[in-house]
Amino acid sequence: MPDEIKLAHGGGGSLMNDLIRREILPLLGNNHLDALPDCARLDAPAHPLAFTTDSFVVDPLIFPGGDIGRLAVCGTVNDLAARGARPLALCLAIIAEEGLPLDTLRTILKSLAAAARHAHVHIVTGDTKVVPRHAAASLFLTTAGIGSLHDQLDFTANRIHPGDLLLINGHLADHGIAVMSARPDAAFLTDLTSDVAPLADLVNAVIDRCNSAVKCMKDPTRGGLAACLNELALNVGFVLDEQALPIKPTVRGACDMLGLDPLTVANEGKMLFVVAPDAAPDALDTLRRHPLGRDAAIIGRVDKRAGLVRLRTTLGAERIVDMPYGEQLPRIC
Amino acid sequence: MPDEIKLAHGGGGSLMNDLIRREILPLLGNNHLDALPDCARLDAPAHPLAFTTDSFVVDPLIFPGGDIGRLAVCGTVNDLAARGARPLALCLAIIAEEGLPLDTLRTILKSLAAAARHAHVHIVTGDTKVVPRHAAASLFLTTAGIGSLHDQLDFTANRIHPGDLLLINGHLADHGIAVMSARPDAAFLTDLTSDVAPLADLVNAVIDRCNSAVKCMKDPTRGGLAACLNELALNVGFVLDEQALPIKPTVRGACDMLGLDPLTVANEGKMLFVVAPDAAPDALDTLRRHPLGRDAAIIGRVDKRAGLVRLRTTLGAERIVDMPYGEQLPRIC
Repeated sequence: MPDEIKLAHGGGGSLMNDLIRREILPLLGNNHLDALPDCARLDAPAHPLAFTTDSFVVDPLIFPGGDIGRLAVCGTVNDLAARGARPLALCLAIIAEEGLPLDTLRTILKSLAAAARHAHVHIVTGDTKVVPRHAAASLFLTTAGIGSLHDQLDFTANRIHPGDLLLINGHLADHGIAVMSARPDAAFLTDLTSDVAPLADLVNAVIDRCNSAVKCMKDPTRGGLAACLNELALNVGFVLDEQALPIKPTVRGACDMLGLDPLTVANEGKMLFVVAPDAAPDALDTLRRHPLGRDAAIIGRVDKRAGLVRLRTTLGAERIVDMPYGEQLPRIC
Repeated sequence: MPDEIKLAHGGGGSLMNDLIRREILPLLGNNHLDALPDCARLDAPAHPLAFTTDSFVVDPLIFPGGDIGRLAVCGTVNDLAARGARPLALCLAIIAEEGLPLDTLRTILKSLAAAARHAHVHIVTGDTKVVPRHAAASLFLTTAGIGSLHDQLDFTANRIHPGDLLLINGHLADHGIAVMSARPDAAFLTDLTSDVAPLADLVNAVIDRCNSAVKCMKDPTRGGLAACLNELALNVGFVLDEQALPIKPTVRGACDMLGLDPLTVANEGKMLFVVAPDAAPDALDTLRRHPLGRDAAIIGRVDKRAGLVRLRTTLGAERIVDMPYGEQLPRIC
């Protein structure tokens, strides 16, 4: 076996089979995957299905607190969780560039496997392609996930009403700043790590306790909390309380230096919960008892000014939080 | 809207939203996708599920008879069909390189939408990422698909027995040679077109007529019929009859010139059927009545020599058909 990926690894021949059998199956194997089906067979689910996909193109592939493998599992598990779904199965499509060191691929797949175990979900089918190398020999991962939904509850934006409260399970913008800090041209040093984590368990705990008082959930990834809230602001508006936003001083410092608004920076282990006001204390308590929610906070409320996201600043002023325009931080996830 | 893809189109902000709303939704929109969910909701299926994924990295993006969009739908629909599944829903993850002309993206998405209509399946959720440009501004598509399986019938390799017959629904190696002919360095001209097509309907027709006499199906894509048969040769062997193989003279000529074995060249609109001998005439008749099976043929049989694929040549000699080693034709799908 060569020690880096060759174009020939993508040819559908014996070299690709060796790669899959020697490198991928020992890490990701399970009853489904071991048979290497082009297509997996799953039992008929008893509940409605959730179905989601994301590609991951993060640069660098390995960053403080995580890597593209962990990201590819958590991103898809969290999209399922945001809809209130329990993950049933994931699939994984690998596009590797020629020259990618096999050691790097192994490290990433090991981390991907650990994240899948943590999220109690298997990779049941997959695909591997190789493309000519770019500047840096890189890797793109695409996961898709199937989840099992509640029969009755559907957590969507049209269930949000004025008066509902906004909760977040911890500090904002850690992921984006941790990835930036790992780039060769980073102008700052930090001990910050990405928050990338699978949130299905945390979300289930909140739903179990608060049921339909949970109106809607969304993970503020690319575009940060600003994009997340602007996408939800269809028939309602949101008011954030700057003082209540959990943002670490190192993140604030890095954002100031880079000219970034932390509200527009990506998170990969955060979930925004929109909750009926009566249930908010219970939701907050549930979050804070969970290892991934210790720094949870109530950060704002829903109001009637449809389409508008506002921030009430520490000094009592108010500013509009716009939808970010384009790419502030390229290849952050 | 700029006339080519910018890094900023991948930022999760308003520029990305514009791209999705103006360019993607008008072509691919449906009840699910129009709400732009990170995660789609599907009714609980009554039958076991099939789940599959493939990435597509074909170069060039547009080739005689098809393009990467049509390929991305057909590849996943055909993986579902090979398991005997009716497609229920697809998801689509786009990785575009900076600089990709929007006109090219439009052409490809239009073709993808047409293929999805042809296959009676919707794209229900998706994702869009942008990466820095490579030599040619390119595009990678990843589709995953959910299908509905028969409750009883499972078409897998362990149902194959000596004496079963091998059928194919038409000419071999058209796709690979058509893609090669579209490359700038192609040393030959041909009017050949790719066979890329969704086969769910054809496969259902054969299953409806022959039921459990259909033992196993597999689409001979990357690595061609040689890789396909070698992967199925676990407990049995196969003998191909060279005289019966449907291969066009232009494909033979191009393969001779390029030093390729047409058995190792990719197909994207072909299905190998392994059928009990009594049912083979019915299966062949069903295939030939279908527009995608007019040139169907019985091309060989199953024997006892486990792990071995042999070709009986026109002259009566016999040669081993090995698993191809690596990449003969890079980025063919």
